[in-house]
Amino acid sequence: MAWNTNLRWRLPATCLLLEVAMVVLFGVFVRYQPDADARWTEDKLSRNVTSDLDNEFYYRYPSFQDVHVMIFVGFGFLMTFLQRYGYSSVGFNFLLAAFGIQWALLMQGWFHSFHQGYILIGVENLINADFCVGSVCVAFGAILGKVSPVQLLIMTLFQVTLFSVNEFILLSLLEVKDAGGSMTIHTFGAYFGLTVTWILYRPNLYQSKERESSVYYSDLFAMIGSLFLWMYWPSFNSAVSNHGDAQHRAAINTYCSLAACVLTSVALSSALHKKGKLDMPFLESRLRIQDTCGIHNLHGIPGIIGGIVGAVTATYTSSEVYGQDGLVHTSGPKGFKPNWTSRMQGKFQAAGIFVSLAMALVGGLFVGLILKLPIWGQPSDENCFDDAVYWELPKEPKDGAVHLEDPTFKPSEP
Amino acid sequence: MAWNTNLRWRLPATCLLLEVAMVVLFGVFVRYQPDADARWTEDKLSRNVTSDLDNEFYYRYPSFQDVHVMIFVGFGFLMTFLQRYGYSSVGFNFLLAAFGIQWALLMQGWFHSFHQGYILIGVENLINADFCVGSVCVAFGAILGKVSPVQLLIMTLFQVTLFSVNEFILLSLLEVKDAGGSMTIHTFGAYFGLTVTWILYRPNLYQSKERESSVYYSDLFAMIGSLFLWMYWPSFNSAVSNHGDAQHRAAINTYCSLAACVLTSVALSSALHKKGKLDMPFLESRLRIQDTCGIHNLHGIPGIIGGIVGAVTATYTSSEVYGQDGLVHTSGPKGFKPNWTSRMQGKFQAAGIFVSLAMALVGGLFVGLILKLPIWGQPSDENCFDDAVYWELPKEPKDGAVHLEDPTFKPSEP
Amino acid sequence: MAWNTNLRWRLPATCLLLEVAMVVLFGVFVRYQPDADARWTEDKLSRNVTSDLDNEFYYRYPSFQDVHVMIFVGFGFLMTFLQRYGYSSVGFNFLLAAFGIQWALLMQGWFHSFHQGYILIGVENLINADFCVGSVCVAFGAILGKVSPVQLLIMTLFQVTLFSVNEFILLSLLEVKDAGGSMTIHTFGAYFGLTVTWILYRPNLYQSKERESSVYYSDLFAMIGSLFLWMYWPSFNSAVSNHGDAQHRAAINTYCSLAACVLTSVALSSALHKKGKLDMPFLESRLRIQDTCGIHNLHGIPGIIGGIVGAVTATYTSSEVYGQDGLVHTSGPKGFKPNWTSRMQGKFQAAGIFVSLAMALVGGLFVGLILKLPIWGQPSDENCFDDAVYWELPKEPKDGAVHLEDPTFKPSEP
Repeated sequence: MAWNTNLRWRLPATCLLLEVAMVVLFGVFVRYQPDADARWTEDKLSRNVTSDLDNEFYYRYPSFQDVHVMIFVGFGFLMTFLQRYGYSSVGFNFLLAAFGIQWALLMQGWFHSFHQGYILIGVENLINADFCVGSVCVAFGAILGKVSPVQLLIMTLFQVTLFSVNEFILLSLLEVKDAGGSMTIHTFGAYFGLTVTWILYRPNLYQSKERESSVYYSDLFAMIGSLFLWMYWPSFNSAVSNHGDAQHRAAINTYCSLAACVLTSVALSSALHKKGKLDMPFLESRLRIQDTCGIHNLHGIPGIIGGIVGAVTATYTSSEVYGQDGLVHTSGPKGFKPNWTSRMQGKFQAAGIFVSLAMALVGGLFVGLILKLPIWGQPSDENCFDDAVYWELPKEPKDGAVHLEDPTFKPSEP
Repeated sequence: MAWNTNLRWRLPATCLLLEVAMVVLFGVFVRYQPDADARWTEDKLSRNVTSDLDNEFYYRYPSFQDVHVMIFVGFGFLMTFLQRYGYSSVGFNFLLAAFGIQWALLMQGWFHSFHQGYILIGVENLINADFCVGSVCVAFGAILGKVSPVQLLIMTLFQVTLFSVNEFILLSLLEVKDAGGSMTIHTFGAYFGLTVTWILYRPNLYQSKERESSVYYSDLFAMIGSLFLWMYWPSFNSAVSNHGDAQHRAAINTYCSLAACVLTSVALSSALHKKGKLDMPFLESRLRIQDTCGIHNLHGIPGIIGGIVGAVTATYTSSEVYGQDGLVHTSGPKGFKPNWTSRMQGKFQAAGIFVSLAMALVGGLFVGLILKLPIWGQPSDENCFDDAVYWELPKEPKDGAVHLEDPTFKPSEP
Repeated sequence: MAWNTNLRWRLPATCLLLEVAMVVLFGVFVRYQPDADARWTEDKLSRNVTSDLDNEFYYRYPSFQDVHVMIFVGFGFLMTFLQRYGYSSVGFNFLLAAFGIQWALLMQGWFHSFHQGYILIGVENLINADFCVGSVCVAFGAILGKVSPVQLLIMTLFQVTLFSVNEFILLSLLEVKDAGGSMTIHTFGAYFGLTVTWILYRPNLYQSKERESSVYYSDLFAMIGSLFLWMYWPSFNSAVSNHGDAQHRAAINTYCSLAACVLTSVALSSALHKKGKLDMPFLESRLRIQDTCGIHNLHGIPGIIGGIVGAVTATYTSSEVYGQDGLVHTSGPKGFKPNWTSRMQGKFQAAGIFVSLAMALVGGLFVGLILKLPIWGQPSDENCFDDAVYWELPKEPKDGAVHLEDPTFKPSEP
């Protein structure tokens, strides 16, 4: 199939339409949370707060910036491993995330920060918007190279909406604990993306096969992304935890778990290669659904494992380990479950996994069908994984090689 | 023209001369601010401060590090887009910034932190020094590829001096508010750089034209720089704001504005290309003044817009929105304007734009003429945009291509 | 010599063995420090702490993340300068550091955080583990390209052990001050690595000579590492300093010193080149011990200079400059030296240098001999500095050049 990939009117129109909508909705709905409002000085006095440091900003800003780097540099460069899709990986990830965080601020705001007709935002909202977009970046991994930027914007619009609904059901209705986002971010994001790519299945994708692999430098760029994701994961998991010990503990746990995973992964990669060599990335999906970045293994399975472990752990938490206050603080109810027990919490946690999966599958089906319409400027099967479709690329020297030293160069020194 | 580009004596002499001067001046003038002084423990007791956290360090250090990354990685890699000028972009930016922050600590110190014969420095001074150097990095963008490192050091010496004078006039004499540095950093930096490059106009620069463009990987390196500048901009704008709500608000505003800009830029880039493709960077200057990085569009125009918006906003601030305390805190006078009104503040803000422009033009003219002297080792017209003039480059394999797999490689496994 | 470099069983076995040991030891010994424990809320009340901010986490987490980036991106990319050793530089550094931080948490924990049978860990332990691994990264620089990942894991196991013993002798027994780790990290790490590479001397290493150099892009990747090390050094030096003025002062000092060094280095590099060009890295070791990254000049000499300066400074500290409280806080004894004087402290500091050197030489000798055994899958002399020995590399296009534009590409636009 050969679609029209000229986006001259469709991409600008989509961008401008969405951005105008954002600006209007922000103008109507978004205001500052008290900690970010110019009246905070007065507010502080009335609440007997004496130190400027007791502003939510100082508890969360360093973690926020780390999470921000993960979304834009981490996910962006992680996907540069394809040999000629680096501009699109970084650039489209940038585009969808920039739109997504605006729409997430609104959607999550209506559900969680809505007071007297206004969404009140502060640093925690910024982090949650980045988290929500994280799930879109995960889904992007499955369809990488096979869609147009217009399709990505449409997917982002719907996925952020569904993410927010799912998050509301889990966190507010089921009162599930999901620090780190095993269910809301990873499970939902991965199975949403996998469903979309399954719907968009291309039987003749083999025509682009020679570009669906890495070259030496593209993998080195991908390492920049991988490392920033790995290093800042303690911030990701602790960014919106409760103040004090909870943030502290989340960071320590993530630091130790991540270190342990590296040795296990290296062992597995070497053992699976016939000469014992290391390969990156080595966990290819065995599913025949064209999952470009292997997100099923990278986010899907781990998300479900995380959800299950969470349910089991919640079932067996006890005040012996946590202290009475600590238990309530950590996994207790916010109010409406009078006969709350650890066991009950465990069941609600388990329910959260199924809700997330259902939301991902149904939502992915719906969005996949919309994206299948032949009007969004998607690339043909033989032009997938290629920056040249949507980007003006720099001209390379005539013989196709990157010349770095010019034999005709004559410096004018004496 | 063919100048002598051998810098063997000129560059070391310039560096050592400047560094010796810095060391002597630091020894004579620079001391620690109370928060960084070993007597702080005593000082704290006398001021009834009970928490170690109430040290300026904890309010500003995370933002400081983000700003630091912007100056060195952000600006450095942003300019690596030229196909064979990566070493110079990163390396010369590193050199000028490293010298500039030392000189800025002194210059800004004499104007703003001078007490009883000493400059007292703390973390806020470090941030302000980075800001000052940011304006030099902006100007560097205009002359990138056409000057020697000796010229850059001389330009930095003068530009930091002029920046500090301009900043003193704006912030201390006119009591202008310039969080984010629309006037002091962007407007001043851009028009200073543009004036310098206009004076250094090279009629035969077309001889280096084939190198004044990017290649695939050089643009990918440039994305690293662009992203770190984009992601950390909330820190840039909030780093020296007032404690609490002001820092918080500046970060939120920057986050939202930056996200909105991405969609608008993508729309514009696609609409301007005849096949709707995206291009980076796409905003080329139409001015015929050889502005290598297009800083007129990137910093000049936005700086002026920022200045105007600031003036308008200041005019219409009211205690209804900000609260009485908030208003004084945010845009009020420090003391010497007894009949201060918002309207008056707006006029002073507007005056700040013109002062910055005048300083940039007159200063740029003066510095440009000094740099035009044929003694600084500048490259000839046909050797511009080339690392080979000033760097010992690694030898590439004989046939000019980067070989990554060696056909003769025989691993010794059994 | 041709060793068997197939690691299919040796690498997975080593990794899994070490990781299982880590998991068991963590399960038996590691618990949370009070600030990270779920009982902190109760604990806080009992100690009359009112603010959540008074948790060690907020004093140290931002610096911790910077240090973490230095270890993984900084050291990892610093060593990508070799033309075809990028995967190994980043990947092996990642592997050894991930193992090293776990073992360091245990070793340092037994020496410094052991209470009633348990190691209590918090954010400061994470930073110290990263520091300890920093010394292994330094040593890795000397043997880069000449060892297998199995050898690196074994070296890490021993070096972390010896580091912790040396650190205990210096900090706890001699009560030496070593902020920044001149002695414990740099001196120890460098001379340990140099001794190991001296033992592993390869007379026929010239057979791999053509790969022991950089190419254009490999040096640009190395600049990413160098810059992150440079920019975050203020965090490295201040991360575990005392709260307040000490952290503040360490950051300021490092910032200024680092800036000064840049000009001096540029001057030296240019003056040493016959045409005055700049070279990176230009300080090659003159020692004939195959020190791949020149760590003798980069860490060895500077570490010793740092140690000496520290001893001299300690000798001449006085309460005039520091205040009585400040002096005790800064360089005073923790308890067991009743007749403590500055002069005495200076002598202990000097002793610390010699202890570190002795530990490095004896330890390096011992570890070098173990690594010399021909069973660890090390590369042969003609296969050094080559990713292909241990990594499955992506296939490059047939003619060996990186083709970025495909002449057969036909976009399907109308």
